[in-house]
Amino acid sequence: MAKNDSNIKDVAKRAGVHPSTVSRVLNPATRSMVSAALAERVMSIADELGYRRNPLASGLRTRKTYTVGIVIPDLTNPVFPPIVRSAERTLDRQGYIAILADSGGRQRSERTIIENMSARHVDGLILASATRKDPGVDACVDQGIPLVLVNRTVSRHNVSAVVNDDELGIELALQHLAQLGHRRIAYVGGPRTTSTGYVRHRAFLKRARELGLDVERRLAVNANAFTAAAGEAALRRLLDSGGVFSAVLTANDLLALGCYDALKRRGLRCPEDVSVTGFNDMPYADRFDPPLTTLHIPQDELGVQAARLLLERIADPSAPAKLVRLEPRLIIRGSTTRAPRA
Amino acid sequence: MAKNDSNIKDVAKRAGVHPSTVSRVLNPATRSMVSAALAERVMSIADELGYRRNPLASGLRTRKTYTVGIVIPDLTNPVFPPIVRSAERTLDRQGYIAILADSGGRQRSERTIIENMSARHVDGLILASATRKDPGVDACVDQGIPLVLVNRTVSRHNVSAVVNDDELGIELALQHLAQLGHRRIAYVGGPRTTSTGYVRHRAFLKRARELGLDVERRLAVNANAFTAAAGEAALRRLLDSGGVFSAVLTANDLLALGCYDALKRRGLRCPEDVSVTGFNDMPYADRFDPPLTTLHIPQDELGVQAARLLLERIADPSAPAKLVRLEPRLIIRGSTTRAPRA
Repeated sequence: MAKNDSNIKDVAKRAGVHPSTVSRVLNPATRSMVSAALAERVMSIADELGYRRNPLASGLRTRKTYTVGIVIPDLTNPVFPPIVRSAERTLDRQGYIAILADSGGRQRSERTIIENMSARHVDGLILASATRKDPGVDACVDQGIPLVLVNRTVSRHNVSAVVNDDELGIELALQHLAQLGHRRIAYVGGPRTTSTGYVRHRAFLKRARELGLDVERRLAVNANAFTAAAGEAALRRLLDSGGVFSAVLTANDLLALGCYDALKRRGLRCPEDVSVTGFNDMPYADRFDPPLTTLHIPQDELGVQAARLLLERIADPSAPAKLVRLEPRLIIRGSTTRAPRA
Repeated sequence: MAKNDSNIKDVAKRAGVHPSTVSRVLNPATRSMVSAALAERVMSIADELGYRRNPLASGLRTRKTYTVGIVIPDLTNPVFPPIVRSAERTLDRQGYIAILADSGGRQRSERTIIENMSARHVDGLILASATRKDPGVDACVDQGIPLVLVNRTVSRHNVSAVVNDDELGIELALQHLAQLGHRRIAYVGGPRTTSTGYVRHRAFLKRARELGLDVERRLAVNANAFTAAAGEAALRRLLDSGGVFSAVLTANDLLALGCYDALKRRGLRCPEDVSVTGFNDMPYADRFDPPLTTLHIPQDELGVQAARLLLERIADPSAPAKLVRLEPRLIIRGSTTRAPRA
């Protein structure tokens, strides 16, 4: 038990209210049931007397720990912190705390993290690290652990997720490049073991054909990770093999940065010689040299929606799985321009 | 209790070892006490039988939760994720899990987070969010909660911390600018309520005088937050008030980005008209336009050292407080050049 200088009855007595009112005020999830003025008074008395609510003790009664695990594949990819922060704030307002872990994009590590968190009795999990076939996700579903995927989803059914409309995003980027007169467009995607890698690659091939562009399968490559280094290696191989193109559409902003590097190494200028588009609109994408044309995904909203879906599932674990798909927006900046004359 | 398909005795029997060996293998903190081959065998048998160690159950015996809280002031400042990630990995290797929270730079919010974490019986805390006078830190010290500060420290004694040699950093940046012929150098710092805001500002005034530069106190201003928006506002006020300078030394990279914005708005070019330096070498600082000259702080090492210090304090809470100070390195990029002729 937490060391309390005082107990709930002392606080109730001093405030002239019933102990259950004190309990209600000190739990963020029920605070709004009393007036703001009363809540403020009770909190300041509790503060004065050094009384602190023990969420674990209330958890013992309700069998809840008010803890949620969040697993992301790469904390140093700046697109994830805004998602994590908005999820955390949404959870916090309901009295939940978040345990965060970085799987480093490794499936084995993700599974260990999930097991670790589940052994600590988290009430639910938000995973941004899922692969299309994900044993960690399967284990959660088998064990009935409330789970919501964010940004990426899985092939199987019966899992709630908040994702981007990846197909729409690719279509918007392709239309933009086509309108600028680009006909030969390369594609640098990510691992097809992830839904974002898989769906964006498929959408590129399909939409490029529909737009009547010169689709050459060998111009569409997939990097082995969503990182700048992997993007650079992928585009370098494409250039080495004699690929000819005036634009590169990539499946995320870090891959696009890698393409900047590969082009520069070849003495090719972006956008004068080759236009480049990204995906995510990660923080600072507008600061790059050149500023990156990319698909803005609503990072805050992804986090808020994932937290809300999870709270719904925790409240009613038998509710049907729900898929929320958010629309990306094209942000045109300095990395794309008219196709050079052939 | 976690639902286990099998218990520790089944695993021990199948592996032909004593249950205490199984326990040792499944606890990352003690795994190295047995051979790698044996550990691998026991783990795969445990996996097969679906047996999972419950760290909370071992916590009940040892009164430990193997949980550490990490509080940072702003998760979307890219300098923090590498610190958090390396701390988390160091803790993970000893069987600890990290609870992460973002205080949004608000003291009240930091205190609530600390109370929440302490009510969940964390074994210790790593705080990157400390202010020089910090009631949350005082409360931890009073209650005997093992605590390590990282990046920023406090005025009081008896608190362990891993910080940068801020004075050296400012000196390196000033020397660089002086060597480029700059005589009138402005300073844009952060809130003096933080040690980084306070020490860097003081170091700037002191070192500039020692280097024989034209020190004008009104050219040294402090933004009200370590953000690009606050940096832009601070430099804009300085320009509006008729401040004349050929270089701006800033106390962090986001402030430097804000200075880029304020200069651009005035039609001033960086670095041709005004050189700018940052502090931290946050990820992507080399990608900005222009690439930022800045002080590299060893982000991974800050996290590793903070985690190690905390593990030491958890093992021996009565050990004397320890201060680790790491040296920054100057990274010269495109945002600084020779002072323009007067």
